[in-house]
Amino acid sequence: MAKFITIGERIHCISPAIREAMATRNPEPILKRAKEQLDAGATYLDVNIGPAENDGEELMKWAVKLLQENFDNVPLALDTANRKAIEAGISVYNRSKGKPIVNSADAGSRIENIDLAAANDAIVIALCSADGIAADNDERMVHCQNLLERGLSLGMESEDLWFDPLFLVIKGMQDKQMEVLEAIKMFSDMGLNSTGGLSNNSNGMPKHIRPIMDATMVAMCMMQGLTSAIVNPCDQRLMETIKSADVIKNNTLYADSYLEL
Amino acid sequence: MAKFITIGERIHCISPAIREAMATRNPEPILKRAKEQLDAGATYLDVNIGPAENDGEELMKWAVKLLQENFDNVPLALDTANRKAIEAGISVYNRSKGKPIVNSADAGSRIENIDLAAANDAIVIALCSADGIAADNDERMVHCQNLLERGLSLGMESEDLWFDPLFLVIKGMQDKQMEVLEAIKMFSDMGLNSTGGLSNNSNGMPKHIRPIMDATMVAMCMMQGLTSAIVNPCDQRLMETIKSADVIKNNTLYADSYLEL
Repeated sequence: MAKFITIGERIHCISPAIREAMATRNPEPILKRAKEQLDAGATYLDVNIGPAENDGEELMKWAVKLLQENFDNVPLALDTANRKAIEAGISVYNRSKGKPIVNSADAGSRIENIDLAAANDAIVIALCSADGIAADNDERMVHCQNLLERGLSLGMESEDLWFDPLFLVIKGMQDKQMEVLEAIKMFSDMGLNSTGGLSNNSNGMPKHIRPIMDATMVAMCMMQGLTSAIVNPCDQRLMETIKSADVIKNNTLYADSYLEL
Repeated sequence: MAKFITIGERIHCISPAIREAMATRNPEPILKRAKEQLDAGATYLDVNIGPAENDGEELMKWAVKLLQENFDNVPLALDTANRKAIEAGISVYNRSKGKPIVNSADAGSRIENIDLAAANDAIVIALCSADGIAADNDERMVHCQNLLERGLSLGMESEDLWFDPLFLVIKGMQDKQMEVLEAIKMFSDMGLNSTGGLSNNSNGMPKHIRPIMDATMVAMCMMQGLTSAIVNPCDQRLMETIKSADVIKNNTLYADSYLEL
C-alpha cells in the first residue's frame, strides 16, 4: 500500500492574513504558511482563493507560480468555486512532483468539475453528496458511482478520482460517524482512493479536544482504508498518528526515528 | 454498543515494588497502584502474582480481598499460571461489580482454564494460540472455534469468552499487524468479545514513542470491534484515544467534558 497523503489546508482565504496577502499579492504570509506545512510533513498544499469572481484566474496563476517556484514544484490542490481560475492555475502548473488536484466536484451542481479534471489530466476530489448531505450510505454510494462513471467515460483513470464521504460534525451528528467510516471502507473495497476534510468531525469542540478527536478519527479512517486527508499538518498529534498508522499498515518501514522522517 | 473495557495491567509481580509487596503482604504499594489506575479510568484491575507455586492460593485470596475491600468490590482479572490460586481467588471474590476474569486460557496446554472459568461462572481470556504464535488467521480462527466450542459445551455464555488475537511486536513482525487487526474484525463479526495485551505491539520502541504507537493501535483496534484491552490506564494519550473512539462509535454520548468523565 502507498503512504497516506496529507493535503495541507492552511493556505485559505478564510484566514485574514492570507486573504490580505492574496488581495495585495504579498508573497511572504503565503510562503510562510507553505513552509510551515511542508516542514511538518504535508505532501500536497491546498490553495483556497475563495469564490474569486473578479480576478480569480490571475490570482490562481500567481499563487501556483509563487508556491511551485519557491518549493521545488510542490504539488497543489486548486480550491475555488471559480472554474476558470482552476483552469488558469493548471495552465501554469508544473507536474514534476504530482498532478494538480481539482478541489472539488460533487454529484450536484459541481459535477462539471469532473469534466474539468478529465480535460486537464488532473486528480479530482469527488464529494459523495449532491446539493445537501447524503441521507445514508445507499445515497453516498449512488453519488460515488455516478461520479466514477462520469470520470471513466471521459477517459480518467479511477485512481485520479479521490472520493470524499463528507466528514460530519460529531456535535450534532454523533450517530452518523460510523456510517461515514463504513463509506470509506466501501471506497477502499472498490479499490478507490479517498480523502476529505477530516477535522470537520471536531468542529465546535473545545480547542484542546480537537487534536485528540482528530487523531483518533484519522487512525480509525486509515484502518478503513482512507488514502488521504485535507488536514492541518502543523497538528503534531495528528501527524504522529498518521505516521504510526502507516507503520502499522506496513506502508512505511518502522525505524526508531520514524516520527522525524 | 457497550463502552470499551480497560483492564489495568500495573499490579504485576514483574515490578520489583509489587513483587516485594506481595512477598511481605504489604498492602500500601498495591493499594497505591490500584488507586492510580482506577483514578485514571480503569474498569477492571489485573492481579498478576506470577507462577506463585508455593503460596499462590493464600496470596491470591489476600490480594483479592485487599483490593475489593478497599475499592468497593472493584472487578478483577486473576492472572497466574497457578490454577488453584485462581480458584482460591474466586472463592473469596465479590461479584457485585462484575464477574472475575480468568487470565488466561489458550488452545494448547492452558485450555483447561476454560473449564475452570465454566465451573466458576467466570469470564475467561481465550488466547488464540496453542504453544506458539498462530502462523496466520486460518490457524487463529481454528483456535478460536476450539476455545469457543469447549466453553459453550461446558455451559458458558459466548459473551464470557474474551478472545485474544495475541498482539505481536512491530519491531520484528511489522508485516503481521494487519492480520492481527483482521482477526479482531472476525471476532467482532461473529459477535464475540475480544481483548489483549495491546502494548506488546510497541515493545522495544523508544519510551517516548510507545504511547503514540499504542494510542494509534487502540483506535484502529476499536474500529475493528475490539471490546476491551489490558493496558496501562495511566497512559493519558491511550485513555484519551479510547474515550474519543467510544464517542465516534456512539458508545458514549459526547459532552465537552467527556475526557474528564
